[in-house]
Amino acid sequence: MKALVFHGPGTITWEEVPDATLVEPTDAVVRMDTTTICGTDLHILHGDVPTVADGRILGHEGVGTVVQVGDGVRNHAPGDRVIIACISGCGVCTYCRAQFPSHCLAPEGTSGIGWVLGHLIDGTQAELVRIPFADSSLHRLPPTVPDELAVLLSDILPTGFEIGVRYGQVQPGDTVAVVGAGPVGLASVATAGLYGAAQIIAIDRDHHRLDVAKRLGATLTVDSSSSDWKAQVMTATGGAGVDVAIEAVGIPETFTMCTDLVRPGGHVANVGVHGRPVELALQDLWIQNVTITTGLVNTTTLPMLLRLVEAGKLPVEAFVTHRFALADILDAYRTFGNAAQTQALKVVMTR
Amino acid sequence: MKALVFHGPGTITWEEVPDATLVEPTDAVVRMDTTTICGTDLHILHGDVPTVADGRILGHEGVGTVVQVGDGVRNHAPGDRVIIACISGCGVCTYCRAQFPSHCLAPEGTSGIGWVLGHLIDGTQAELVRIPFADSSLHRLPPTVPDELAVLLSDILPTGFEIGVRYGQVQPGDTVAVVGAGPVGLASVATAGLYGAAQIIAIDRDHHRLDVAKRLGATLTVDSSSSDWKAQVMTATGGAGVDVAIEAVGIPETFTMCTDLVRPGGHVANVGVHGRPVELALQDLWIQNVTITTGLVNTTTLPMLLRLVEAGKLPVEAFVTHRFALADILDAYRTFGNAAQTQALKVVMTR
Repeated sequence: MKALVFHGPGTITWEEVPDATLVEPTDAVVRMDTTTICGTDLHILHGDVPTVADGRILGHEGVGTVVQVGDGVRNHAPGDRVIIACISGCGVCTYCRAQFPSHCLAPEGTSGIGWVLGHLIDGTQAELVRIPFADSSLHRLPPTVPDELAVLLSDILPTGFEIGVRYGQVQPGDTVAVVGAGPVGLASVATAGLYGAAQIIAIDRDHHRLDVAKRLGATLTVDSSSSDWKAQVMTATGGAGVDVAIEAVGIPETFTMCTDLVRPGGHVANVGVHGRPVELALQDLWIQNVTITTGLVNTTTLPMLLRLVEAGKLPVEAFVTHRFALADILDAYRTFGNAAQTQALKVVMTR
Repeated sequence: MKALVFHGPGTITWEEVPDATLVEPTDAVVRMDTTTICGTDLHILHGDVPTVADGRILGHEGVGTVVQVGDGVRNHAPGDRVIIACISGCGVCTYCRAQFPSHCLAPEGTSGIGWVLGHLIDGTQAELVRIPFADSSLHRLPPTVPDELAVLLSDILPTGFEIGVRYGQVQPGDTVAVVGAGPVGLASVATAGLYGAAQIIAIDRDHHRLDVAKRLGATLTVDSSSSDWKAQVMTATGGAGVDVAIEAVGIPETFTMCTDLVRPGGHVANVGVHGRPVELALQDLWIQNVTITTGLVNTTTLPMLLRLVEAGKLPVEAFVTHRFALADILDAYRTFGNAAQTQALKVVMTR
């Protein structure tokens, strides 16, 4: 089969590799019909994720067709069309049973992390992929949901919703600020309304992304490169500060923007992937009754979000900006990696 | 009347001042029967709280007898024996109605902070004190509860419980680590069992304080000056990390101890008063699904904790280590300020 293989920082190739096969009885092999590229894949390409070995097939998002299942798989059969969750939880360890497959203890790849696809084992940017714990990691795709929307459910929609909106404890009537309008930040924008947010403020320097934010439900957009960006947000809250600030960039500056914007008693939900420590202003925050959360997605809300997409209650078409054939994935990487020029959000590859 | 007056960093005097009087119709004047000294008073004395003006009477804890009430006071009358909550919430602003009197918006002292006694207005280390918003700030003292236990309900017991145990979301079966066994940390130790903690681990360098922690409910004590302190805690959790880590010191090192000890999906509740920023290891924590909380006490649980003390369900006698006459408060400050030698926890002054 052909696959996108990582060969150390800066180097990926589309090359012939051995076919994916069953290893454990709980595995499925899935033929990839549709996949996409995540910001995390770029982090890997840039060498920021040292746990990814030379020779690893990348990718943790996708929609495909089951071609083979192990003896232990009960929910899926060859021919099923499925969404692949980016988290491969075993379903039975302490963490999985507590609804935290993000910290699955099964030794698939490693113990203590549920994100293994395209990280610790071969991933979805390939013609075939081995999916561990198929019963808990695959979700049947309703025929009315197009692949290119379904693929958003592998990672970004659950991430923006679970780690941004839910961990941020968005309540009806809240003002929610989302700092960073990349795909995951936009997923928080698109799902904040599910808990009744009254105001959704998208903050970014990229005007194209802010325009998309508006189409996805933002009630106000703020250009963070303007000198009065903070005043614009505070004015929208009557000077009080926002109820929930969602960090969706992953650098110290944007994290501090969130702790600066939140009102006393409010919530900061960190969604961004960080490579450096941040300075937390506890000398000011100790008295502010704030809650700060972090997290890797659990994908436990994938079925719920899928029902909303299926019912047309979550219009997410605006996420998909570019389409490629799977064999042209290197072009897709170039387009996605140069988003400031290409205005790429999600680039989708199909078989 | 006589009162303990702050005259700038390093200087406090016991001196004659004008009697406390009613100012607003919602005020009461209370004759102080019992008061105590908080670690925060020492911070003020050391010049760490610049919002405290020269001439301010210190103190925000106490038990007394109502001597006069304004026309707007409905719940209290002269002669009532009362516990004074350290937070003076107006009861009607947005924050008070949301159960956050810690951020009361009434312009009593200033707007946006509910801790005004001994901070922005004169406090309880005096023969008389003006209590604003008497209806919401005073609590009737049952005759069976001794003053020296009741005074613990002004601040430390609600702080340890609300900001440590409740914000830390302690659940039945949890392992809770409390870093710092001063009075507020001990209040978290003493109340963690209310939500069914299975293990309560007290961590400090002071063996006397660790002994008190055991009497208050700690199931394990760890000397943080020993090189294997972390291994001792991790061993107690089977290597998993604690469910809840409560920071009750207020320095960067102890905050980091908490983020190091907590398991994925766990909670860090910061109770300590910090004077400096801390380095938050988001490069590790972004993926850990942790929750970090901060806060000033609301004292909304004071009535509930009072019922437990009254019923003998919260044995808190061990908190009180030293007793003084109110007129000897300067001796009490010296004893409390030199706790490493005197083994002082709460020093109680009575009329």
